[in-house]
Amino acid sequence: MTNFQFKLIATDGNARAGKIVTAHGEVPTPVFMPVGTYGAVKTVTPEELVDSGSTIILSNTYHLFLRPGSELIQRLGGLHSFMGWDGPILTDSGGFQIVSLSDLAKVTEEGVTFRSHLDGERHSITPELSVSIQQQLGTDIAMCLDEVIDPLSEKKAMAGAVDRTRRWAERCIHSRTSEKMALFGIVQGGIFSDLRVESAEGLMEMGFDGYAVGGLALGEPRSETWEAVKSTTTVLPEDRPRYLMGMGTPMDLLEGIERGVDMFDCVMPTRNARNGTLFTSEGRLSIKVNALRDDLRPLDAECSCYTCRHFSRAYLRHLYKTGEMLGFRLCTIHNLSYYHQLISGARAAVLAGSFAAYREQLEEGWNSGERADRPDAEKSRDW
Amino acid sequence: MTNFQFKLIATDGNARAGKIVTAHGEVPTPVFMPVGTYGAVKTVTPEELVDSGSTIILSNTYHLFLRPGSELIQRLGGLHSFMGWDGPILTDSGGFQIVSLSDLAKVTEEGVTFRSHLDGERHSITPELSVSIQQQLGTDIAMCLDEVIDPLSEKKAMAGAVDRTRRWAERCIHSRTSEKMALFGIVQGGIFSDLRVESAEGLMEMGFDGYAVGGLALGEPRSETWEAVKSTTTVLPEDRPRYLMGMGTPMDLLEGIERGVDMFDCVMPTRNARNGTLFTSEGRLSIKVNALRDDLRPLDAECSCYTCRHFSRAYLRHLYKTGEMLGFRLCTIHNLSYYHQLISGARAAVLAGSFAAYREQLEEGWNSGERADRPDAEKSRDW
Repeated sequence: MTNFQFKLIATDGNARAGKIVTAHGEVPTPVFMPVGTYGAVKTVTPEELVDSGSTIILSNTYHLFLRPGSELIQRLGGLHSFMGWDGPILTDSGGFQIVSLSDLAKVTEEGVTFRSHLDGERHSITPELSVSIQQQLGTDIAMCLDEVIDPLSEKKAMAGAVDRTRRWAERCIHSRTSEKMALFGIVQGGIFSDLRVESAEGLMEMGFDGYAVGGLALGEPRSETWEAVKSTTTVLPEDRPRYLMGMGTPMDLLEGIERGVDMFDCVMPTRNARNGTLFTSEGRLSIKVNALRDDLRPLDAECSCYTCRHFSRAYLRHLYKTGEMLGFRLCTIHNLSYYHQLISGARAAVLAGSFAAYREQLEEGWNSGERADRPDAEKSRDW
Repeated sequence: MTNFQFKLIATDGNARAGKIVTAHGEVPTPVFMPVGTYGAVKTVTPEELVDSGSTIILSNTYHLFLRPGSELIQRLGGLHSFMGWDGPILTDSGGFQIVSLSDLAKVTEEGVTFRSHLDGERHSITPELSVSIQQQLGTDIAMCLDEVIDPLSEKKAMAGAVDRTRRWAERCIHSRTSEKMALFGIVQGGIFSDLRVESAEGLMEMGFDGYAVGGLALGEPRSETWEAVKSTTTVLPEDRPRYLMGMGTPMDLLEGIERGVDMFDCVMPTRNARNGTLFTSEGRLSIKVNALRDDLRPLDAECSCYTCRHFSRAYLRHLYKTGEMLGFRLCTIHNLSYYHQLISGARAAVLAGSFAAYREQLEEGWNSGERADRPDAEKSRDW
């Protein structure tokens, strides 16, 4: 075991409020983790992350392994010091990016071989190497290498992925040497509830510091996603954090919390910011539309972020239209602040026993937005 | 006259230390003005400008006229409030960009007609319209529309540009209606000393709030540039600020100050930052080179900027190599801080009567840099 801890503080239905303790500080849960792919959350400084409410960030093992290299980062003092972020860091195992980004990825029992998406160079990552890279980075929470396959695969194939994920998890847990680094197992099983339970129970026998729900939001119907999440969280131990990987929208956060999820990550708030889509208490807002040309209001009247305190929609639209990087930054600060405000509101609601009312109130706000501001109202149905 | 003021505080040889007073605050001179083309100094916030030492910024009339439009900015409360910058703003007249960026620019006695470089739409800017646009923006210091031609043009053509610039200056001064807005005349004359004197004297008869030296650093030999600057500053009144337009390198700042220049602007610190070239007390540093891969030193050991306090060369190189916008920002913050530290050091030296020693000391530093760090040492000769 590590000096990593999770304390469950309160529940409200299945929703949970807790606290994660790591070597780099505490994280109130539920929590949203911004994605810092290359050891930087795109456009913003560590200081701005803190100001926006970030308490833990995620970084990508695959990307850092290729550039600048995990050995170099270790030699320079680890990822925290390299990027100037003192808070906790969670890293993924690299497996998902290998399969989705690299060329000719080949999965065998030994591990994954692939060609770099940057220069075509051949690499191989095993469960042991993934853990070792994450230790070199000095991450606070490492993820086991898992086998992710299409959630709509046939049951037999999915059962194979669940088995391999369990065997790899065992190799991961045996190869960890750092006592500071927590290690999470990843539950697979696609949309098959019985496989989810089998996967979770197999990992629980090994005793991980936390458990992730992986392999979802990859094309399956959303109702099946939530069914699979529920099947998983129902069997996971109460005294360990649950992390739903790679999701999602503000509504996804609420849906997940309602089903007992504690941790989330997604590129959505940061990527959408750079694409000009903002999250507000009245729903999505496209910064591009003409209606904002002379709109002196902040992005969100209810938001207290740096961007909303200092700049108007009209100015942000102008920055977007002229391609000014400052606009990407200011929108990123807002979206991250929105996500963090939403989730700390959810935590407060769980503590107060009013999570259902909190969710209802947010949804009402999202449905109240002016249509003119919401050119992508279609897409927002997935909230 | 306006409520604009300039106070000459001390001289050291021809070098001057002074203070400009505007409706939006005071500016110690000599001063370097970062360029905020579209109402934003690229990548940084107003707060970061202040932290980097900026006291006045320049914005481009031509660009703001096209996007988002000066009438809109006026309606929204003026440029200061639009962009969240409370300090003084100087705007150019738009003339230079029209000729250099737009298609089919045609200069007649009436003014300049051109097609927008964005959409090809036809526009026309007269001296009166340029002043009116700058008033709409709410600038603190406006520039007269001038005729800029190749500094290596024949003397007869240059004399024509000087005459037209004088006639346009007269139209500008008569069309100004705002008492808050200072107006500067621009001295032309290329590299002909007698035309420079004639141009300066013609403008001085009209009594401008300040005088700019324009039309230089456009391909003429650098020794001729400084000769032309000297010819101009020698005849300009002591009690008005002198602004050398569009220059330049750190060495240019020192050369200009030595010849009695008070104000500078250039895209160099911000543009070079985005291209990975940093200015340091040891000369230029390219962030791209392999030697910085594991260099844990700050960009400049003598710099106290946010970037140098928090990040290593190795991390900044990594951000550059991975195309992270955060890197452009952090490098911009450093380069601006370097320029502002250099020029406030020059001011202190003038006040102490030690400007020549200050210059010598900086040059020694620039020549001390490790060659490995200076792949563009060739280019740095123009310092």
